[in-house]
Amino acid sequence: MNKVVLIPDSFKGTMSSTKICEIMSKVIVRYFPSAEIISVPVADGGEGSVDAFITAVGGKKVTLSVKGPYFEEIQSFYGILPDNTAVIEMAAAAGFPLVGNNKHPEKTTTYGVGQLIKHAAKAGCKRIIVGLGGSCTNDGGAGAAAAFGVSFKDENGNNFVPVGETLDKITSIDVRGINPALKGIEIITMCDIDNPLCGSQGAAVVFAPQKGANETIVKMLDRNLAHFAEIIKRDLGQDIMNMAGAGAAGGMGGGMSAFLDSRLQMGIETVLDTVGFDSMLEDADLVITGEGKIDSQSLRGKVVIGVARRTKKAGVALIAIVGDIGDDIEKVYEEGVSAIFSINRVALPFDKARERCKNDLMLTVDNLMRFISHRKFI
Amino acid sequence: MNKVVLIPDSFKGTMSSTKICEIMSKVIVRYFPSAEIISVPVADGGEGSVDAFITAVGGKKVTLSVKGPYFEEIQSFYGILPDNTAVIEMAAAAGFPLVGNNKHPEKTTTYGVGQLIKHAAKAGCKRIIVGLGGSCTNDGGAGAAAAFGVSFKDENGNNFVPVGETLDKITSIDVRGINPALKGIEIITMCDIDNPLCGSQGAAVVFAPQKGANETIVKMLDRNLAHFAEIIKRDLGQDIMNMAGAGAAGGMGGGMSAFLDSRLQMGIETVLDTVGFDSMLEDADLVITGEGKIDSQSLRGKVVIGVARRTKKAGVALIAIVGDIGDDIEKVYEEGVSAIFSINRVALPFDKARERCKNDLMLTVDNLMRFISHRKFI
Repeated sequence: MNKVVLIPDSFKGTMSSTKICEIMSKVIVRYFPSAEIISVPVADGGEGSVDAFITAVGGKKVTLSVKGPYFEEIQSFYGILPDNTAVIEMAAAAGFPLVGNNKHPEKTTTYGVGQLIKHAAKAGCKRIIVGLGGSCTNDGGAGAAAAFGVSFKDENGNNFVPVGETLDKITSIDVRGINPALKGIEIITMCDIDNPLCGSQGAAVVFAPQKGANETIVKMLDRNLAHFAEIIKRDLGQDIMNMAGAGAAGGMGGGMSAFLDSRLQMGIETVLDTVGFDSMLEDADLVITGEGKIDSQSLRGKVVIGVARRTKKAGVALIAIVGDIGDDIEKVYEEGVSAIFSINRVALPFDKARERCKNDLMLTVDNLMRFISHRKFI
Repeated sequence: MNKVVLIPDSFKGTMSSTKICEIMSKVIVRYFPSAEIISVPVADGGEGSVDAFITAVGGKKVTLSVKGPYFEEIQSFYGILPDNTAVIEMAAAAGFPLVGNNKHPEKTTTYGVGQLIKHAAKAGCKRIIVGLGGSCTNDGGAGAAAAFGVSFKDENGNNFVPVGETLDKITSIDVRGINPALKGIEIITMCDIDNPLCGSQGAAVVFAPQKGANETIVKMLDRNLAHFAEIIKRDLGQDIMNMAGAGAAGGMGGGMSAFLDSRLQMGIETVLDTVGFDSMLEDADLVITGEGKIDSQSLRGKVVIGVARRTKKAGVALIAIVGDIGDDIEKVYEEGVSAIFSINRVALPFDKARERCKNDLMLTVDNLMRFISHRKFI
């Protein structure tokens, strides 16, 4: 083999995609020392996404001071890729680790995320990727919008920066103040879920409990997001109430669409386009992908299938190395996966298996490389 | 691929080697419909060994009436292979299923096994394989010996057929009456263990408890086997006391050696020689072996390693498909195994994994065949 492309998703809860690439390439080089090995750890928009993009294509990290979830000053960052695309992970200014146990989705803001976006635009980036994921907020992206120039007025006509519990205080929204640097820029929101803004599948009901909201607060947040959508519809003429993905990241999906006309796109498609995956395939001998569990769910726009559709088109072999292999995966092969290997090598429950997953992954790749380098039987 | 040889061990407690061959070949033929697939389910000498040999090379089954473990008349059988080798599984006349819950290793006999041996010799077989394994006896093979003509005398000078609890009554042994049909015949005893006749690793202490003996009976059986070995040494000039494997099958290993000058041989070597494995390899593209768990133990004369040494010499690729993969298996590759694949595809404890093992094996082979038939990346 002369060229191998590694493009795994993370194994949720056990290994990051960056770690997986690292383990895989370390083994492969032992068997194919002269092979070119390209690592594309897949970013899902959450924590680590900026690093993942920079690992894949290079670039630099910009650090700056912005407002954190409770409007405190924090050091944050975003990435600029060689093609002048900015990559922002929302978690860097509104992420869970920033609040610790002080979880109050009704009080936290995405203001800092808006500052990152504005900074990237003013720095001259013509394309901005905003990764949703790992947020501690439920403000519908109102905070971010305020940061880049949207004004929200209360019943007294005063400007304010709404948070989850004060979204119902908005009486009007004015977008004329949006920073001019943001005009004409392509803004892509990476988002793998399609929950609507409100209701039983909405941002508050589905995600706010894990962000620290009790039942009463969940109901209030849900109500407030509905009010927010109503004003947006009236003042901006945009309907985010029934938009798939509007409920992502505490309604940030909806806000990004309403205020920046951002396209919500599956993470894997964003990655594949941004890293130039199709041209990577041109002389590749093998692509290795993977995820924590492959099953019929994997067919729904997830990493393995996203990759498979491209490798199939290009006629390149694709191996999926996964944690568990679910049932009914015939279709996964049909989509272009040549073979699937589980890293499970001993019958053990997950809590035991996860402890040994890094070594098991290493040994699984080792075995495959032995197999591939043994050409005799093909 | 034009020719594939399947030569798996059983997965102890889950699948017989015959079943494994059946599952594997059913899948392989889907991907390589014109390939020659040779199934050599490995016999371990225990129940199913005769069928395994016949599956591998053909032959016929001879049925006859012999004495069972309690000297009752039972229907038993042995196999005759195309090269006139007889295959006897001891379990067919002295096996556990024949006694049900009536387990008394001190009272049961191998007499019927001796009858099978004599019958095969008189039928003109010039080579007899006797598989030990699954026995309910602890008579040192004295019963079998009596059946083919050895005489055991008690203190009154009367002939008798000793069982475990009466081995101590033997005062002399005379082998001159051994049936002349047995002269000049090669008799191989298949035996994968090397326990000595007596002591802490001996037949009684290690195996009699699972055959139904309590502590008192274990001690008595151990003592009686020692007496038996003493008389054999005195009257036959053979020392089975310190012989590796003499303790197999309630001392049957020792008896086979003392009375028939039989060579004790690892099951896998017996199988490989008997089926003509080396010539099977001549134009083979791939060999698939396997066992329940592959680990450093596997290096000790077990199936996978026995097969690997031959395939390595012949330069044929060897895949091991196994249940669990243990640690420290680097040496297994060195011995000639090209690659090892576990059938575990979901992190589950063994009691759950065993329930789904047949399907998991099928899917694992299916995946491998997809992989092998996808030639692009090699």
